[in-house]
Amino acid sequence: MINVGIVGISGYTGKFLLKILLNHPKVRINYIAAGSTKGKLEEIHPEFIGKSDLVCDEFDLQKATDHCDVVFLAVPHTKSIEITPGLLKAGKRVIDLSADYRLKNADTYQAWYEKAHTDPQSLAQAVYGLPELYKEDIKNARLLANPGCYPTAAILALAPFVSTQTRNIQTIVIDAKSGVSGAGRKATLSLHFCEVNENFKAYKVLAHQHTPEINQCLSQLAQDNVDVTFVAHLLPINQGIYETIYVHCGQAVNAEKTHQLYTKFYKTEPFVRVLPLGQQPEIKNIVNTNYCDIGLAAKGNLLVITASIDNLVKGAAGQAVQNMNIMYGFPENTGLTQ
Amino acid sequence: MINVGIVGISGYTGKFLLKILLNHPKVRINYIAAGSTKGKLEEIHPEFIGKSDLVCDEFDLQKATDHCDVVFLAVPHTKSIEITPGLLKAGKRVIDLSADYRLKNADTYQAWYEKAHTDPQSLAQAVYGLPELYKEDIKNARLLANPGCYPTAAILALAPFVSTQTRNIQTIVIDAKSGVSGAGRKATLSLHFCEVNENFKAYKVLAHQHTPEINQCLSQLAQDNVDVTFVAHLLPINQGIYETIYVHCGQAVNAEKTHQLYTKFYKTEPFVRVLPLGQQPEIKNIVNTNYCDIGLAAKGNLLVITASIDNLVKGAAGQAVQNMNIMYGFPENTGLTQ
Amino acid sequence: MINVGIVGISGYTGKFLLKILLNHPKVRINYIAAGSTKGKLEEIHPEFIGKSDLVCDEFDLQKATDHCDVVFLAVPHTKSIEITPGLLKAGKRVIDLSADYRLKNADTYQAWYEKAHTDPQSLAQAVYGLPELYKEDIKNARLLANPGCYPTAAILALAPFVSTQTRNIQTIVIDAKSGVSGAGRKATLSLHFCEVNENFKAYKVLAHQHTPEINQCLSQLAQDNVDVTFVAHLLPINQGIYETIYVHCGQAVNAEKTHQLYTKFYKTEPFVRVLPLGQQPEIKNIVNTNYCDIGLAAKGNLLVITASIDNLVKGAAGQAVQNMNIMYGFPENTGLTQ
Amino acid sequence: MINVGIVGISGYTGKFLLKILLNHPKVRINYIAAGSTKGKLEEIHPEFIGKSDLVCDEFDLQKATDHCDVVFLAVPHTKSIEITPGLLKAGKRVIDLSADYRLKNADTYQAWYEKAHTDPQSLAQAVYGLPELYKEDIKNARLLANPGCYPTAAILALAPFVSTQTRNIQTIVIDAKSGVSGAGRKATLSLHFCEVNENFKAYKVLAHQHTPEINQCLSQLAQDNVDVTFVAHLLPINQGIYETIYVHCGQAVNAEKTHQLYTKFYKTEPFVRVLPLGQQPEIKNIVNTNYCDIGLAAKGNLLVITASIDNLVKGAAGQAVQNMNIMYGFPENTGLTQ
Repeated sequence: MINVGIVGISGYTGKFLLKILLNHPKVRINYIAAGSTKGKLEEIHPEFIGKSDLVCDEFDLQKATDHCDVVFLAVPHTKSIEITPGLLKAGKRVIDLSADYRLKNADTYQAWYEKAHTDPQSLAQAVYGLPELYKEDIKNARLLANPGCYPTAAILALAPFVSTQTRNIQTIVIDAKSGVSGAGRKATLSLHFCEVNENFKAYKVLAHQHTPEINQCLSQLAQDNVDVTFVAHLLPINQGIYETIYVHCGQAVNAEKTHQLYTKFYKTEPFVRVLPLGQQPEIKNIVNTNYCDIGLAAKGNLLVITASIDNLVKGAAGQAVQNMNIMYGFPENTGLTQ
Repeated sequence: MINVGIVGISGYTGKFLLKILLNHPKVRINYIAAGSTKGKLEEIHPEFIGKSDLVCDEFDLQKATDHCDVVFLAVPHTKSIEITPGLLKAGKRVIDLSADYRLKNADTYQAWYEKAHTDPQSLAQAVYGLPELYKEDIKNARLLANPGCYPTAAILALAPFVSTQTRNIQTIVIDAKSGVSGAGRKATLSLHFCEVNENFKAYKVLAHQHTPEINQCLSQLAQDNVDVTFVAHLLPINQGIYETIYVHCGQAVNAEKTHQLYTKFYKTEPFVRVLPLGQQPEIKNIVNTNYCDIGLAAKGNLLVITASIDNLVKGAAGQAVQNMNIMYGFPENTGLTQ
Repeated sequence: MINVGIVGISGYTGKFLLKILLNHPKVRINYIAAGSTKGKLEEIHPEFIGKSDLVCDEFDLQKATDHCDVVFLAVPHTKSIEITPGLLKAGKRVIDLSADYRLKNADTYQAWYEKAHTDPQSLAQAVYGLPELYKEDIKNARLLANPGCYPTAAILALAPFVSTQTRNIQTIVIDAKSGVSGAGRKATLSLHFCEVNENFKAYKVLAHQHTPEINQCLSQLAQDNVDVTFVAHLLPINQGIYETIYVHCGQAVNAEKTHQLYTKFYKTEPFVRVLPLGQQPEIKNIVNTNYCDIGLAAKGNLLVITASIDNLVKGAAGQAVQNMNIMYGFPENTGLTQ
Repeated sequence: MINVGIVGISGYTGKFLLKILLNHPKVRINYIAAGSTKGKLEEIHPEFIGKSDLVCDEFDLQKATDHCDVVFLAVPHTKSIEITPGLLKAGKRVIDLSADYRLKNADTYQAWYEKAHTDPQSLAQAVYGLPELYKEDIKNARLLANPGCYPTAAILALAPFVSTQTRNIQTIVIDAKSGVSGAGRKATLSLHFCEVNENFKAYKVLAHQHTPEINQCLSQLAQDNVDVTFVAHLLPINQGIYETIYVHCGQAVNAEKTHQLYTKFYKTEPFVRVLPLGQQPEIKNIVNTNYCDIGLAAKGNLLVITASIDNLVKGAAGQAVQNMNIMYGFPENTGLTQ
């Protein structure tokens, strides 16, 4: 039984961490905090009425260190940098769901997030928490940078091919679509029901901050510079990401062999499902689960990969708990099977 | 050709006024304004790109009076009171879509809208703009109080019965459901897509500000005090109101006779459709139209009336234009048939 | 560890039984069947890929009795009558989610379901499975009639008041709204996405087959004849029921006392949450849970009760599992807390 | 005033033809028919109550030729081939919204639609009705093949670039998303509300029948063989298409120059809006209109084009009326401005 804390419980990611961890058999939630939201959890999120007596307050380092072995940070980017050093110094483990410790290069961080990185020391030791690729590193992580939602789907969809077919690849296009919870629980007009419902649009075209995160990881896998084209779109649904990925190659792509490559690559992974050839993922099959479903198709020199995850589960809270399980030696799917 | 102005173009009602009036053959939109939104119309609402060169600014009485014969006020309640007196004084006609001039009793206004009514003089001359009941008054109105969305459906659904069966009625329950645009175009968390989508809830139970408006009009029709039970709910759709109304009577209700009563009552009205017995309204049949569809059913002493309108059209902008048509002697359905 | 079977896995109720029971720690699903759907479960519902090796076939009494201790019937009404007698004869317990054994009077069944009841013998021994009211009977049930979705919410919402204030009540109106899964997984035009989305309508007005079920149970509680007014509506969401109930009384209703009555009535029930006065249920707070949330308001002689459940969980599969837990002496919430 | 007929009024395209043509000032709808749907229009589509006395029956060549100058065919593919020859022989003009006369090569038709083309004679004279490219041919068309919904957006999005930058283009990827009405008004389980709502998926990956239509038109514009990659997806909304198009080039693409190229290309077209650089289309801005909105972005050798239309308007019924206007010398936007 470990003692955990969650900072940032007013957002959707924080709420999903609560939902998952309240049912986790190896965990006791001992501490919750948020930026400006205070009060009983059941008043903040009435769905928890009768399920918890937790009370939320502003983050307090002393309280957090007194009550927790590990702290989940579900806060906006640039906030984690402020909180993390103190927790690490107190010997606590940190699972950061913000973007603050994902980009290894502090200049890249500054370029995309428009703030100087003030904690390069922690950044150097942060482990990128994509369990399917970095399980060994995760086991010993003190500071875990939980991947972004779009990058999780993109990297899982591309890893087998990019790590083995590096020289064959000419261009990679990621056409990504996300449900609205991916934009956060913010009171802005652009997320008003009537602005999103029965609508669809591209946004931050060729300028989305998840692009360098995808490139960083794929370049490492390829041991070469990879530069993807990434366009994000807003889907009028609550949860779910769908990415359709087009890989143009120098030579013909064999669908069956590629399917075998993927099946083998993820053979022992509990949360990646490579679908039979001819079948495509659907968001409804993965929503509220920690799965990443992957579909494959090929024609001539083109490989088309489709991948789908729940942005709040495998794309955020679920993956964070999967990482915690690995960090503490619990079975990887503990608390994540419903 | 008359010259019109619209104040409050950034909200949904203002946008629908623009949509309707830009296609109205007898109207020239000469002036637009809004509270805090400024700039070209096509930048504020990109759907108007290529359709209009209008530019929006803060409300300016001089500009409005210089350019308009009649001004539509699609502003929040308590704002119309500030604007209307000046316009009337300058000899302009005003069609007010806010709640400011609907309640004849200034104390009732203060009780429900939590602000003293500072313009009792105009209030005294305001005409309640429900064309199916007050057409003659509307013709000569200088200040027209356009009805609320819920009251429009409720009053049209009840008028034939209440005005003829007054003594038979014991209780009236109005279970009302509205699409989200009825809540306005505001950046608030409670209207965030994920808070509304796949959700449904009652709100302001027994405390909705449209209740006195319904009671005022029905009491006048009944020439007796009518006090309805009204509960509002939020539907996860963009546009549309649906009201299911339960009238318990002292004596048995005859469905066929009631249907004849309704059919006769609305025989010459272009925008009220009394459906055949056994058929119920559906929001999809009236969305983006100025229709009010009404269904009837009866059993024992109970009459069940269902009514549906588009809250932005018959419940706001469409009815306002219908009123304008009557005020200016245009055919009542001009600009309202698509 | 008990062995269960599920008949009717192609529908939404069957799928939710699978979802819940696959994670139930005391259960082994040993048998699945469906009317016309055959094949591997993961081909029928791809969301179960990697989670189960079950194969579906037509119902076969021998196989069912060989492999199961208890069989869940998630089949259309009139089908359970055909299957149940054989299972009971073989000594198996049956949890029937159809309407076939809910109405104690075979004539009433015939009047509303348009088929003669051919199994009056089993009907006589069937237990109505609303755990909050009939827990003792459920413990020993051989044939359990799982309540309808609308009746579950209606009865839970009314039970405390009806059972104690019988003589005070004059009329009861239930304005009920249900998500689309309540209509079943059928290929009909009226359930086509574009016919339902952005729409809302009343249906089967004053003629819904759940009415006698509600009346039967409330009359028993009141020890008097209760005859509710019930109107159903179709909500454009996947899951969730919301009922707004208007109880007109002969005397004034005290909100605080009524709230105390409800709080006390459901004090030990794990799945009924009486909300604080002034707070209303929202479907999003109970979706995918087995909760029934209840809100209360009163004014003069009127009591307004709002109640919300997930039609597929507390209104079907979840309640069926809750009943199974009681029948087998497991903690009542086993497998139902996520 | 011309006399028109519509065959196939039970589907969404037929319904939108009715909506548009009932308000068209130059048109009298004299004849309606459908495959298996019969009766009064207002019973088939209650939204037309009070708007039309038309009665629908099975298609009858004699009646159609007696009452119509031009007939719109909103029927499934392979049905138009049966109806068209008789109408042409009788001297009537035909606007076919099915796929039957779009592909110039009968073998290609057979390969993608799995039926031999039995009317090569009419096919030879059919005009492809994309007004922005083929206005002169449309003026004299006797048989007009109204373009597919996906091809309309794709071709308009690509025409300026493909017709001028042919040699520079290396690959074209069209990631297309469509609202559900594009799948037709069919009673199939895959279009059940709960299967589509809160879901998203790719379908017919690399195998969609609109691919050859796009290639045929672009190849003609390029005067060279063009072979696009096309993947379709199902959006959980009623109406609207969004296409994100990735054009990899041999040389750098200049965004400003490309924007000028597009602006000039569509300068005089009333229904194509090239958005300012940096702005992207949104479905909500074009829904229920005949517009095609186009956005542009570029980076290095890559051009990203976003395009959005309403599949039922510019992608079907609206474009068909636009074509009719051109065929009869009416202003191109008659009846299409609301």
